[in-house]
Amino acid sequence: MWKYEKKLQYPVRVDTCNPALAQMILEQFGGPDGELSAGIRYLTQRYSMPTNEAKGILTDIGTEELAHWEIIGTLVWQLVKNAPVCKIKGTPFEAHFASHGRSPFPETAGGVAWTATFIQSKEDPIANLVEDMAAEQKARATYESLIQLSDDPGVTDTLTFLREREIVHFQRFGETLRIVQEKQDCKKFY
Amino acid sequence: MWKYEKKLQYPVRVDTCNPALAQMILEQFGGPDGELSAGIRYLTQRYSMPTNEAKGILTDIGTEELAHWEIIGTLVWQLVKNAPVCKIKGTPFEAHFASHGRSPFPETAGGVAWTATFIQSKEDPIANLVEDMAAEQKARATYESLIQLSDDPGVTDTLTFLREREIVHFQRFGETLRIVQEKQDCKKFY
Amino acid sequence: MWKYEKKLQYPVRVDTCNPALAQMILEQFGGPDGELSAGIRYLTQRYSMPTNEAKGILTDIGTEELAHWEIIGTLVWQLVKNAPVCKIKGTPFEAHFASHGRSPFPETAGGVAWTATFIQSKEDPIANLVEDMAAEQKARATYESLIQLSDDPGVTDTLTFLREREIVHFQRFGETLRIVQEKQDCKKFY
Amino acid sequence: MWKYEKKLQYPVRVDTCNPALAQMILEQFGGPDGELSAGIRYLTQRYSMPTNEAKGILTDIGTEELAHWEIIGTLVWQLVKNAPVCKIKGTPFEAHFASHGRSPFPETAGGVAWTATFIQSKEDPIANLVEDMAAEQKARATYESLIQLSDDPGVTDTLTFLREREIVHFQRFGETLRIVQEKQDCKKFY
Amino acid sequence: MWKYEKKLQYPVRVDTCNPALAQMILEQFGGPDGELSAGIRYLTQRYSMPTNEAKGILTDIGTEELAHWEIIGTLVWQLVKNAPVCKIKGTPFEAHFASHGRSPFPETAGGVAWTATFIQSKEDPIANLVEDMAAEQKARATYESLIQLSDDPGVTDTLTFLREREIVHFQRFGETLRIVQEKQDCKKFY
Amino acid sequence: MWKYEKKLQYPVRVDTCNPALAQMILEQFGGPDGELSAGIRYLTQRYSMPTNEAKGILTDIGTEELAHWEIIGTLVWQLVKNAPVCKIKGTPFEAHFASHGRSPFPETAGGVAWTATFIQSKEDPIANLVEDMAAEQKARATYESLIQLSDDPGVTDTLTFLREREIVHFQRFGETLRIVQEKQDCKKFY
Repeated sequence: MWKYEKKLQYPVRVDTCNPALAQMILEQFGGPDGELSAGIRYLTQRYSMPTNEAKGILTDIGTEELAHWEIIGTLVWQLVKNAPVCKIKGTPFEAHFASHGRSPFPETAGGVAWTATFIQSKEDPIANLVEDMAAEQKARATYESLIQLSDDPGVTDTLTFLREREIVHFQRFGETLRIVQEKQDCKKFY
Repeated sequence: MWKYEKKLQYPVRVDTCNPALAQMILEQFGGPDGELSAGIRYLTQRYSMPTNEAKGILTDIGTEELAHWEIIGTLVWQLVKNAPVCKIKGTPFEAHFASHGRSPFPETAGGVAWTATFIQSKEDPIANLVEDMAAEQKARATYESLIQLSDDPGVTDTLTFLREREIVHFQRFGETLRIVQEKQDCKKFY
Repeated sequence: MWKYEKKLQYPVRVDTCNPALAQMILEQFGGPDGELSAGIRYLTQRYSMPTNEAKGILTDIGTEELAHWEIIGTLVWQLVKNAPVCKIKGTPFEAHFASHGRSPFPETAGGVAWTATFIQSKEDPIANLVEDMAAEQKARATYESLIQLSDDPGVTDTLTFLREREIVHFQRFGETLRIVQEKQDCKKFY
Repeated sequence: MWKYEKKLQYPVRVDTCNPALAQMILEQFGGPDGELSAGIRYLTQRYSMPTNEAKGILTDIGTEELAHWEIIGTLVWQLVKNAPVCKIKGTPFEAHFASHGRSPFPETAGGVAWTATFIQSKEDPIANLVEDMAAEQKARATYESLIQLSDDPGVTDTLTFLREREIVHFQRFGETLRIVQEKQDCKKFY
Repeated sequence: MWKYEKKLQYPVRVDTCNPALAQMILEQFGGPDGELSAGIRYLTQRYSMPTNEAKGILTDIGTEELAHWEIIGTLVWQLVKNAPVCKIKGTPFEAHFASHGRSPFPETAGGVAWTATFIQSKEDPIANLVEDMAAEQKARATYESLIQLSDDPGVTDTLTFLREREIVHFQRFGETLRIVQEKQDCKKFY
Repeated sequence: MWKYEKKLQYPVRVDTCNPALAQMILEQFGGPDGELSAGIRYLTQRYSMPTNEAKGILTDIGTEELAHWEIIGTLVWQLVKNAPVCKIKGTPFEAHFASHGRSPFPETAGGVAWTATFIQSKEDPIANLVEDMAAEQKARATYESLIQLSDDPGVTDTLTFLREREIVHFQRFGETLRIVQEKQDCKKFY
């Protein structure tokens, strides 16, 4: 179970009122390679992991991804909460506003609702861990796209922090993969 | 952000090896009215809530729903982790096994992946809170279906606990609705 | 069964050629809280309702929602039927035009096809009726977003009429809920 | 707009309590080639039809398909309304029961929610009418599958009636296609 | 099985850097009536076809549609591969860039991922072949929309070639339908 | 473009009439980690690959996956083409039969239509290649599940061949990843 701590893992600073950027950043709130995908994937895969250490790593990183998901939600909300309708019309956020007002929603930048088909959970731990490494690479690439699209310095700073975390997670999944493989006594999985 | 505590909110006891029941219980792991729907819904809606109290209630209940989601995942895993393939063939869990092995997945009892189209998040707090009350009623009805399908006493006990929690949450959302309505000074919204 | 009457429930007046507005209004033609969701939801739930009165109310309101769906389709068509391609390019209606030309389609403002995952139908009448009350609140909130986006006086007039009907339906579902609860002799469902 | 008449287009007789058959028949309540697909498709396509006659035919057939949808819903409900849980467990209706109890839902026989991606609506009337002819052929083929699966004489009788209607509709769409083509003065579209 | 030949079926010439047009053309890369739909539909339907000739026609046309899919992918890539981010921002390609960078993806112009619900495959060959004729008509209509949206002469030329192929395929499916019907000795299927 | 060769990459032998097994094997015809996912993923990713060698490997393996997809379709068809309805009723293939008859369809073992949300295509070649390695691992694990479920020696033989190919592809993607990384002059990507 989880305890909520009333703070963000990383402080959020938003310098602009920017509905178009908010819509793009929703990609990491509800897109295929976003934080919700990461959190639900790891927290779902942990049950069948073969060692307590591997279960623990998936639980830890999954829990951190939920904290990142909260950061992204805060970014989106800060970018639009004071936006008048006239600043929303004509932007990619307009269709979102028609359906949700200014409230966030777990969807892609293109406005498609999150689906668990974005993730996988197999009983095979090798398959899961290579999928997790791929997930972190794809999340990194997505942050790099968003950083290129951002013209808000505060948002860019937060996205840069989150991008770094994906690289750290990629490394930890790589190490976990080696440990699980050794345990399975199959030194050459590829 | 969240801290993980290494215990379940309610102890899980599973008395049988039962892949068919596991598949049905996945309804609350990834179905429309399940615990994942509840957790993501409330944690998404909280950003635009008009008072800190309402934000706090959505955060608290959303966090508890994640703990329930973990309980459901544990139930599913305990029901199948030792099941030989011959006990899986011919049950509704067979298609799940083809895709995921014995690992849980956020899907309906019918094997359809969870999607955020199951939930809504509007900027309007009245609409959100009535949706939340409906969510709790639908979750209660789902638990009542599952309790009728269960022939595992341990599982039935856990499902009964979770059903009770939905009723408590329904009441809390009802109270929050009244507070938010009064604050909006529109005594008669219906 | 139904008989078609060759008139609209409320006269439609459209003052502008406005593809962008048409795309936003599609939210109520095929979005989660739109008229198609309402009509299919109520007409599906009625089979298991415990009283003839409740069945009748769901049938009546469901039938009226189909009439509203027809009104929304007419609005969308009037807003684009004479739009030259040069007035469609660069608007949010352009992707719709690529796929459907100027013909309406049951989709969200963001262009995602309607899905029955937007609705629920349980055997439990209390759960259904609270979901119906939520549906009406969410539809009301959506009309309020659309009215803010509309700069066509005729369209705004029709949207205002439809918004009012949602409030009336909300009240009728509230009354039906009380009657069904009394019949179930469980005065305190929460 | 529509007026509801409190009768079915064709009398429904169900001779058995049969949850497995109910689940298969849901294919025509919410499957790709079912009655809901037909009704929504035709009622959506009519706005852009080039003649009043073609608009009228789509409206008439679309309205009749809604009446067929109601018949299918009645069949499903009659097949399961008195089924005890012990007669539901172990059948393909069990996953449906977990989510919806005995209430119908617009889904395929496999339990997947209806989606508007099953249908198309183009501005081009030729494309729409050939799609409509295909829809009727596919619905006919589906009824032939269901008739082979049915061992309930009453249900088989109703399915046979509905199958016949698809053939009549196919012919009417063929005639409408020829009229629209002639009007477009392009005698050889294929 | 297939052998890849390192050439396109039709030479591709792209005259502009045009992310907005690229996004629209994705409609035929991953939209309901696009080349991927066509290829997968025909290659899936062929197994149950009653004659070797019909199997062969579906295999041939299905294989050609894959070549068209490759042409469309090449068009999309050529239209965006050198686009700087500043030429992507503010266009309908921006949400695609957030998720995929400049790489193509099988999705609609509106950014919704391709799904097999766009197609059907029945055991009944008449139903399949009428569906195939409808598919070709809808693809033709889609190309006509895209040609109206295109302001790139090279792209227009390629789209015009592909549109012509749909008409040829429509005719071939019409002939195949007549042969299969005659073989089934049911001269009047409608 | 592709040339079709009228032979299978590997000879198919099916020893039983087995609708239940056919339904499970559909997992590799249209499931998340199946042959269609693989083929479309690699053929979509190749456009943005940074070297001709990498483009060529994706094209080659993607083309081979289409040949595997054809093998799987043949397996499914052989397992059911002569099945009488009485051998289909009561099996997991029954819902498939209601919708498609005995014809294959790109869907999961659970009957959910294939969707491109199962795959990803980024402009970043590192992210794509790690995703491809994950895809091969997941496909291998799926074949291992299916081999456990199969009691048809001919089918098991074919599945074993296909499983081996996934391991070879995993190795080739690993080598390609190293080459691309070296070219990018970033020796340590994790």
